[in-house]
Amino acid sequence: MENGSKQWRFQGSKGLNPASAISLRAVLELVIGNLRKDDPRPIIPLGNGDPSQFPCFRTSTIAEDAIVDALHSAKYNGYAPPLGVPSARRAIADYLNLDLPYKLSPDDIYLASGCVQAIEVALAAIARPSTNILLPRPGFTFYESRAAHNHLQVRHFNLLPDKGWEVDLDAVEALADEKTVAMVIINPGNPCGTVYSYEHLKRVAETARKLGILVIADEVYGHLTFGSTPFAPMAVFGSIVPVLTLGSISKRWIVPGWRLGWLVTSDPKGILRKSGIVDSITDYLNITTNPATFIQGAVPHILENTKDDFFSKIIVTLREAAEVCYNGIKEVPCLSCAKKPEGSMFVMVKLNISLLEDINDDMDFCKKLAKEESVIIVPAGIAFGMKNWIRITFACEISTLEEGLGRIKAFYQRHAKKQ
Amino acid sequence: MENGSKQWRFQGSKGLNPASAISLRAVLELVIGNLRKDDPRPIIPLGNGDPSQFPCFRTSTIAEDAIVDALHSAKYNGYAPPLGVPSARRAIADYLNLDLPYKLSPDDIYLASGCVQAIEVALAAIARPSTNILLPRPGFTFYESRAAHNHLQVRHFNLLPDKGWEVDLDAVEALADEKTVAMVIINPGNPCGTVYSYEHLKRVAETARKLGILVIADEVYGHLTFGSTPFAPMAVFGSIVPVLTLGSISKRWIVPGWRLGWLVTSDPKGILRKSGIVDSITDYLNITTNPATFIQGAVPHILENTKDDFFSKIIVTLREAAEVCYNGIKEVPCLSCAKKPEGSMFVMVKLNISLLEDINDDMDFCKKLAKEESVIIVPAGIAFGMKNWIRITFACEISTLEEGLGRIKAFYQRHAKKQ
Repeated sequence: MENGSKQWRFQGSKGLNPASAISLRAVLELVIGNLRKDDPRPIIPLGNGDPSQFPCFRTSTIAEDAIVDALHSAKYNGYAPPLGVPSARRAIADYLNLDLPYKLSPDDIYLASGCVQAIEVALAAIARPSTNILLPRPGFTFYESRAAHNHLQVRHFNLLPDKGWEVDLDAVEALADEKTVAMVIINPGNPCGTVYSYEHLKRVAETARKLGILVIADEVYGHLTFGSTPFAPMAVFGSIVPVLTLGSISKRWIVPGWRLGWLVTSDPKGILRKSGIVDSITDYLNITTNPATFIQGAVPHILENTKDDFFSKIIVTLREAAEVCYNGIKEVPCLSCAKKPEGSMFVMVKLNISLLEDINDDMDFCKKLAKEESVIIVPAGIAFGMKNWIRITFACEISTLEEGLGRIKAFYQRHAKKQ
Repeated sequence: MENGSKQWRFQGSKGLNPASAISLRAVLELVIGNLRKDDPRPIIPLGNGDPSQFPCFRTSTIAEDAIVDALHSAKYNGYAPPLGVPSARRAIADYLNLDLPYKLSPDDIYLASGCVQAIEVALAAIARPSTNILLPRPGFTFYESRAAHNHLQVRHFNLLPDKGWEVDLDAVEALADEKTVAMVIINPGNPCGTVYSYEHLKRVAETARKLGILVIADEVYGHLTFGSTPFAPMAVFGSIVPVLTLGSISKRWIVPGWRLGWLVTSDPKGILRKSGIVDSITDYLNITTNPATFIQGAVPHILENTKDDFFSKIIVTLREAAEVCYNGIKEVPCLSCAKKPEGSMFVMVKLNISLLEDINDDMDFCKKLAKEESVIIVPAGIAFGMKNWIRITFACEISTLEEGLGRIKAFYQRHAKKQ
């Protein structure tokens, strides 16, 4: 065979899976590509849920010291057990048990390399041929991508903006069939900034039970609430319906780069064990990677010793930021919030395109805003299936947020339709 | 519906994939389950390739300090880019370029959460319907497990004990067909402790080129060689055949728990880009986890500043351990080595069952050895498809190894057939 005409037999697998969702990162890159290098002003990043770069969101020294101590002990340089370091599993069980009416055992806890790997493991464990899963719209697109990878069919139920982004439970019942195995609930909510009430979560549990499906409760923003609704973990209703709880230290401790998350079988009746889900989780964890061992080794110290004033300071900062964001949005006639955010780091904002002269849709809005004002926000049409909505992150320095909102207002004024 | 008769619709996915291999961990657990709690002597762990627990294999303080500095900088608490932190990609390219006749670019380097995730990404990127991959026997069973997960058919070629565990290239040619996309080579070798010569690797490259398949070169034990054959990276032959090089700091720095590995497109002709493999790698990395950001941030300092005397000390220790192990095995009549190990941390040992009175096979040997002598070694029949072979790890304290070999000898003497 000649060099030039050499026939190679391999080919990339890309595109083989059904309709994988575009990742949030890819959407953000589409927007970021419009930034102008000649704008002397700083870029205002209101896109990502990662405030770790801002001094007011620096993690606790307790957490940093715990990592250093675990590293220097030289006890955690080797491989971890596939399900996780036992002391970390015990500490996470104790941490979650503070909010539960029954006791999780360390055996219910599986360490994951960030909440995204917890999602990966959960979906791999439940995916069987021609089954389907119910996902919220708007939601977190990583679920769509991993579902596609696992050949798990996706059906979307709406979150209702006029009802504080509650789950449309009638739609859930209408969408489910005998091949539906699970529904996902993200609380506190990404991208809506909502916090579900105890009563609403109970109705979710009862609906899932009626349908015979399990609930995957994504609580990566757990405890990051600052409104009138307190955070209730879905696992509180584990006796009604088996729950796979997903969480991490990423958000509450502002260390998403540490890649330390967990998957929990919140299931006092042992239904997940009987149905083979537990075996499947264990099996998958045996053939994948896991969090760095010394970070696992630091978990007990981090969970047990972080001071309340660290958490309070973060909550106070987020509350103020959410307030500033909500008020700033009210100043821009083409934008409106369905509900003031009460949790997580985001708010979904509706865009009234008819008030703008030369903007086609949410993507066009975000691209031109990046180009003219160096402000990054997420267009929710392509990212979350919510045409002419945008997602704004308020988790940043207040001064940065104010500057960003001011630029958005100036952008509106320049593009507003003339009366 | 009644509580007791509740019909749940979900079920675990376990067992859906074709013939997933048993993991090495699971095999070790079968052996470890036979340990007697009443043996007052310490357990001698000659099973795993993880010597980090032994003081003589403690990692470099340079590496530990680099982690602490990256952590305290607070620059690496946030999410990393999906392909890896740019400075880490650049440092790994520079590190690998020291041994190559051409230059890798940082764009050729993809960070992975340990070498196992690099394997996961590589196999996901090449798996297409009804394609197959050629794997070495004996090899590393994680490949079989991930191939099964990706519905990639597996065909095994033998490594030849009488030829220093070289690849049976005639078998490779006979096994390959138009659906074969890749072959895997592990060098320095796990489980054989072999180091392939430059000439043999060149013949591997030429065979793969003739077949039109790519080479996945697992070099997680790269540079851990202590015999007469120097380590040559497969990527040296990247102009003959495109190579996906897999590596990590796990073994050379004795930190497998840090979960920092890499996948590299060693492909000066750009064939992997043209064939869509690069896009598929990028795509997969967008929907999976990655190494902790501050560990990525420490990589430049670790790779650039670790002193030669750290590496030399490890090599001297491994060389002495391999020698002690080889000589100790010669003292046990029922055991024989095909070749003295020259690299990695392992040796494959043939078991002559006919010399033993009441031992059925390699698994029986390992279970009874664990029970009677508290020594853990890997039975190679179930673990590597090599019936009546065993794998011994010599990477431990010399005194521990000597104690273990002494106990194996005593075990033999007790079970030897009477003349």
